[in-house]
Amino acid sequence: MAIEAARLSPSLAAAAFLARRPPPALFPFSLRCRMPLLRVLAGSSGGDGRVVALSSSELRKRRGLSSSSGAADPASGGDEKLRSLRRLFARPDVAIDAYIIPSQDAHQSEFIAECFMRRAYLTGFTGSAGTAVVTKDKAALWTDGRYFLQAEKELTHEWTLMRSGNHGVPTTSEWLNDVLPAGCRVGIDPFLFSFDAAEELKDSISNKNHELVLVRAMNLVDEIWGDARPKPPKEPTRVHDIKYAGIDVPSKLSFIRSHLTENGCDAVRGSDVPHSPVFYSYLIVEVSTATLFVDSNKVSEDVLEHLEKAGVKLKPYEAIVSEVERLAEKGAKLWLDSSSVNAAIVTAFKSSCDKQMKKKGKAGKKVEKEASSDEPTGVENGALNAVYNVSPVTLAKSVKNEAEIEGMKISHLRDAAALAEFWCWLEEEICKSVPLTEVQVAEKLLEFRKKQDGFIETSFDTISGYGANGAIIHYRPTPEDCSSIGSDNLFLLDSGAQYIDGTTDITRTVHFGEPSPRQKECFTRVLQGHIALDQAVFPERTPGFVLDVLARSSLWKIGLDYRHGTGHGVGAALNVHEGPQSISYRYGNLTALQKGMIVSNEPGYYEDNSFGIRIENLLLIKELNLANSFGGISYLGFERLTFVPIQSKLIDVSLLSPSEINWVNDYHEEVWDKVSPLLSGDTRDWLWKNTRPLLDVTY
Amino acid sequence: MAIEAARLSPSLAAAAFLARRPPPALFPFSLRCRMPLLRVLAGSSGGDGRVVALSSSELRKRRGLSSSSGAADPASGGDEKLRSLRRLFARPDVAIDAYIIPSQDAHQSEFIAECFMRRAYLTGFTGSAGTAVVTKDKAALWTDGRYFLQAEKELTHEWTLMRSGNHGVPTTSEWLNDVLPAGCRVGIDPFLFSFDAAEELKDSISNKNHELVLVRAMNLVDEIWGDARPKPPKEPTRVHDIKYAGIDVPSKLSFIRSHLTENGCDAVRGSDVPHSPVFYSYLIVEVSTATLFVDSNKVSEDVLEHLEKAGVKLKPYEAIVSEVERLAEKGAKLWLDSSSVNAAIVTAFKSSCDKQMKKKGKAGKKVEKEASSDEPTGVENGALNAVYNVSPVTLAKSVKNEAEIEGMKISHLRDAAALAEFWCWLEEEICKSVPLTEVQVAEKLLEFRKKQDGFIETSFDTISGYGANGAIIHYRPTPEDCSSIGSDNLFLLDSGAQYIDGTTDITRTVHFGEPSPRQKECFTRVLQGHIALDQAVFPERTPGFVLDVLARSSLWKIGLDYRHGTGHGVGAALNVHEGPQSISYRYGNLTALQKGMIVSNEPGYYEDNSFGIRIENLLLIKELNLANSFGGISYLGFERLTFVPIQSKLIDVSLLSPSEINWVNDYHEEVWDKVSPLLSGDTRDWLWKNTRPLLDVTY
Repeated sequence: MAIEAARLSPSLAAAAFLARRPPPALFPFSLRCRMPLLRVLAGSSGGDGRVVALSSSELRKRRGLSSSSGAADPASGGDEKLRSLRRLFARPDVAIDAYIIPSQDAHQSEFIAECFMRRAYLTGFTGSAGTAVVTKDKAALWTDGRYFLQAEKELTHEWTLMRSGNHGVPTTSEWLNDVLPAGCRVGIDPFLFSFDAAEELKDSISNKNHELVLVRAMNLVDEIWGDARPKPPKEPTRVHDIKYAGIDVPSKLSFIRSHLTENGCDAVRGSDVPHSPVFYSYLIVEVSTATLFVDSNKVSEDVLEHLEKAGVKLKPYEAIVSEVERLAEKGAKLWLDSSSVNAAIVTAFKSSCDKQMKKKGKAGKKVEKEASSDEPTGVENGALNAVYNVSPVTLAKSVKNEAEIEGMKISHLRDAAALAEFWCWLEEEICKSVPLTEVQVAEKLLEFRKKQDGFIETSFDTISGYGANGAIIHYRPTPEDCSSIGSDNLFLLDSGAQYIDGTTDITRTVHFGEPSPRQKECFTRVLQGHIALDQAVFPERTPGFVLDVLARSSLWKIGLDYRHGTGHGVGAALNVHEGPQSISYRYGNLTALQKGMIVSNEPGYYEDNSFGIRIENLLLIKELNLANSFGGISYLGFERLTFVPIQSKLIDVSLLSPSEINWVNDYHEEVWDKVSPLLSGDTRDWLWKNTRPLLDVTY
Repeated sequence: MAIEAARLSPSLAAAAFLARRPPPALFPFSLRCRMPLLRVLAGSSGGDGRVVALSSSELRKRRGLSSSSGAADPASGGDEKLRSLRRLFARPDVAIDAYIIPSQDAHQSEFIAECFMRRAYLTGFTGSAGTAVVTKDKAALWTDGRYFLQAEKELTHEWTLMRSGNHGVPTTSEWLNDVLPAGCRVGIDPFLFSFDAAEELKDSISNKNHELVLVRAMNLVDEIWGDARPKPPKEPTRVHDIKYAGIDVPSKLSFIRSHLTENGCDAVRGSDVPHSPVFYSYLIVEVSTATLFVDSNKVSEDVLEHLEKAGVKLKPYEAIVSEVERLAEKGAKLWLDSSSVNAAIVTAFKSSCDKQMKKKGKAGKKVEKEASSDEPTGVENGALNAVYNVSPVTLAKSVKNEAEIEGMKISHLRDAAALAEFWCWLEEEICKSVPLTEVQVAEKLLEFRKKQDGFIETSFDTISGYGANGAIIHYRPTPEDCSSIGSDNLFLLDSGAQYIDGTTDITRTVHFGEPSPRQKECFTRVLQGHIALDQAVFPERTPGFVLDVLARSSLWKIGLDYRHGTGHGVGAALNVHEGPQSISYRYGNLTALQKGMIVSNEPGYYEDNSFGIRIENLLLIKELNLANSFGGISYLGFERLTFVPIQSKLIDVSLLSPSEINWVNDYHEEVWDKVSPLLSGDTRDWLWKNTRPLLDVTY
């Protein structure tokens, strides 16, 4: 599945990088952990409020969205939502001139529980990335290239679509500075912005003397959503078995604590996220204790026992702010990652620290003034009590241990078997007279996956796009508005699953009839990019963006490109999009690709209103044993995890080099060897037919 | 010729990039121009003090360096230099504990007049990049991977070689913080450090309470050099003809002035550099005047007339500091590029501004305190009167106009003719009984080039390295210490010329006997990298570093690499190394490659103590007319300027793809078509033989 670091501009990323290497005396460190350190995972059954394994139409219904899209729909109250929101601007405890509604929840999660899909509720635009800004007389929505077509379809005429990344399109703050008279009040919900993002916003709108207002009293969209708003998720949690996790909780806690001690910190807080087998919670790890902030209804007896054994106490989810304030009061030094921890928590900690300092200041002002020069005396906003740095957990969880790698490999074979059954079934169905829709096909795929051992849920909403729909990079069909799959155009299917032992994510593009020469040329060039990245060898310490060009250069040669990154990090039985590593044309992410990390390899090409192509495998990074090792360092390469045939019919063999032809043939041989033992009958025959060597037409 | 941005670490570069996008109210702009805006160029005859067209041995003699290298040479006074330097530390007007001697001159020039080669004089190490640091009891020299072998040879045992970039090697300031007790005084000559570099140094040594001392009274190395120090260059200047320049001086001045006005500046200063057809000078462009600070002895009657016509006044070179102070006094806003303008000038300007502010401050203190919030009242170091930004001239001169492109193309053909004559001659000579040395061969090459129309000088010291010497990336042979060229190993020749209409830079590696399979494999992989970059197509706005991996990936596949960038910018009848563009594995340089820019394409491989390989052509960036232009933008590619055969004998054809074989054959066909008309007799025959198609052994 393609992912876009939409909020990570090169300049911001550079700033973030610099911020990690500050003058020691000025900045300490920080951490935010999205890792279910405790491996208490969200269960698989479709509980209320969860977003998993639901069709898009179902989702749209639940979100109170109009089922017909495109034009304004007075019945659904599109106008009324904006009117109600603007009425709230005037309330004395709000008093703002504009309100920004991001896609994020309080944990900067990628997948969001329905009750937190405020931007989608307000705007009608259901894409995963986007920011809405509403002033007293204007409403605008920003999204990136993956969603331009979808947003055009879904937004009503009251909304202006801002195509982020297109030439001349302003940022949200540039736009606010442009449309508002000087000196306005711009409101945000501080739980939904990372502290850094809030600071940056404050800074950029201050150019026109606007003030950033942290509206803590309520979320204005929730207010107008009212009773129709879905309930927060109440999914029960479960314990992730050590045989898949590889490392137990006490070892993980002790790993974090060793980092705390090294950095002179007293505590670290983490927060876990829903969809993907994690849940809404905060975690504070102190040197001698660990506290999980979670809705206690989600925690069953056995989970509670597991937590107690590991030395983890429970507190209510809502108690996080007061706990952070308590830590500030007792003078604890907190490790915070201000780039992801929300502004509400960071500012609560800072102002508590400030209060403490003032108290202390009154008592010992003179002493401090004479303190040695190592100890700066002026403390601004509690900065001295927070350590700002990237989490050691973030990197630790991106580098998989042996048990995790083993689980990923095995679960990928089961997933491949499900996909072989699916494609075999679909090829048969296409010949029949009653056409299947994109949604029906996605539901059938889910059925095949559910039959596999250890299946939990899909790892993201299936992207099932026929013809022009395939060109909508993150297209999600709805039963009311989806195409039938035929044999006249390309069909793009991007899907994945969470298994007990691993996470999958795969895209294949196929044609059930006769592809055009144009489609074959484009597909072949995407495939060449896929092969070039797959075959890359690179020295240790290479950041992912260095390799991105390999996946693009075959397309660039004919003036084509794609508007998304080439690879994202993948968790092992965790989030399907999980940093810090990535392979992207955006060169802000300096994280080196490391042995044991997993990335996707998914170049694509999208011809608007015509067709879409993407070929995606997951790759494990491994150390290579080469004849040389110049510079005395390691050289790394990739091992494929995904084993599903690539449709030969779409390949223009005359464009491939002999080594590219060999790659395709070797890959298909490997697919057959690894997956055929799991299959029988027709499906096995299908796999045999679809893993035959390419006819070498040129040589 | 390979170039290394040795001082440009990714983090520094990122910082520099950020510094260009500051909050408008806090930072204004700046510019430094290395371009001979006035196109009054240094002449070609070998005047005293110039470094051009001299053999390395001659240079070493002139610089007072020992001709024997390797061990300490008491006769040359190695010990005595350090002793004398340390004696100066104690002088009351100096009073320092350590002194840093960079390679730079006052203009951050790449090629340095002999009298400014202080680091080489002091250390004996003659490589182009390096920094020496001397404390009361230690002496250390930092250089990068290109020079490790050379520095090992040239440094005496009193010097510790610091291999920059190797794991665990400290930076100069880390080392100073380590070896000096806290609170020491570290001296520099402020003319030799850019203002930014000086500030960064000050910052990093302040961690241990060291103080950075700007020693203005004298340069300590000059002091001990005494009468033996060469005289400053007195080379006459000349006017560069408009037919090669394409744009006249008034147009160039008006271009700069339009930028001044846009940015609310009153003046811009530039400085030109020697070697390459430019000269030591500063230039201040004001809205109505332009002043060139140059030794008037260098300016002949006709040059003077040219300058007067263009509205340019002359002042003595030394008057620059007082002129900058005068501008500060009259309250002028100066455009300065603190990343390249030396610290002496910037600090002079700043302290003059401060004096002015104090005077004003006393008169109008109360008024200022009540000024509006748009106008910060606290002015630190004259920051408000300087505009810090990258020069519009830097970018303008990197994008060549039609006349410059035409000149570059034609001069490259003449250069190719000279090289064909040279290689033909050398192949004959190798068969004879008396072996030729690396130096003799370089001198003969100069002879062939001198016969070409418009030849001025070499564009850098020729790198002529046989066998193991080829592995010294910037090797420069001396008559006393150089190898003979035989037929048992590889011979690497990197050379270039300045012509009246263009600048060349080319490397070829050849074998006159039977290359080993290892050599052929390495050569072929370097060639594959060269071809991959040559053939690259990329969207506009792509920075050079994105393409670097294309030149390396074939080497990486077998665990090999090279420790230098892949391409540098090249001036048109200007500096052979000229930014801002580059193609490097260091991803700090975000300058986009643009139509009309010229870059080198020079991957290599160096096997220490064994052999070196480099294949270098110059490339012009052009806009391509492709079948598609995704995103509605331009796609760019390269046009080759260099037309000299690549030795087929060294190519392992079995490693090449069909398209790589085609590339070699097409290139050689083009070489024959373009260069054969300039040749006759044996040389023409040689070219014919060396441009025959590769035998296609595989297909």
